Amino acid sequence: MTNQPKPAELLVCVKCRHQEEIPEDEARPGEVLYNALNNTSVPPAIKVTPVECLSNCSQGCTIALRGAERWSYVYGNLDAAEHLDVILEGASRYQATTDGLVPWRERPEHFRKNCIARIPPLEVQDV
Amino acid sequence: MTNQPKPAELLVCVKCRHQEEIPEDEARPGEVLYNALNNTSVPPAIKVTPVECLSNCSQGCTIALRGAERWSYVYGNLDAAEHLDVILEGASRYQATTDGLVPWRERPEHFRKNCIARIPPLEVQDV
Repeated sequence: MTNQPKPAELLVCVKCRHQEEIPEDEARPGEVLYNALNNTSVPPAIKVTPVECLSNCSQGCTIALRGAERWSYVYGNLDAAEHLDVILEGASRYQATTDGLVPWRERPEHFRKNCIARIPPLEVQDV
Repeated sequence: MTNQPKPAELLVCVKCRHQEEIPEDEARPGEVLYNALNNTSVPPAIKVTPVECLSNCSQGCTIALRGAERWSYVYGNLDAAEHLDVILEGASRYQATTDGLVPWRERPEHFRKNCIARIPPLEVQDV
């Protein structure tokens, strides 16, 4: 059991407007995405966390995958109506690693094409 | 002393080609930026760390500011010949906070216009 990957966290920007004008009384696309994820079968080792603005507003909706001792990844151009399966697949592959590094070919296509940035774990080795 | 902000880390993507073709025997723009920063007076509370690819290749050169219990920020479109002062000013303001949140108006203009993404600290509170 000790070698099993640790849980990972899936951050969802719930303030995202998806580059649209959203009336004040309507749920924003980011909140819709967060709620949709919560209504799916997210693996228990993945914690879905709502956050306010991941600062990728021009390419929202936006999620981030992160966890202790892992590389963090930010992905954009997501839509609740289209990308729930992509997010769940990508998050599951990420959680299944110990360092967050999923081989390129094993990433969902949307993740390959819409990676906004990544940040190494705090314990990064100098290159 | 206990309330002083902790040291912060300035990550520099040393593999960045700055969207250009770079001959194999020439230093890449990311490495040039890293070397230039190391030749300036970086405050001792800021550790400059070279990293391989922050996955912001279409908007390089790229840096990230991060630290324990802080928001991490990724900034792009940087150039060693133009932006050393901007990076040092922005990094110093970042380091002077305890949580990484520099008020908008206090950020250098280039940082305001070229923030690629941010990620909350691992200890983030749910919104």
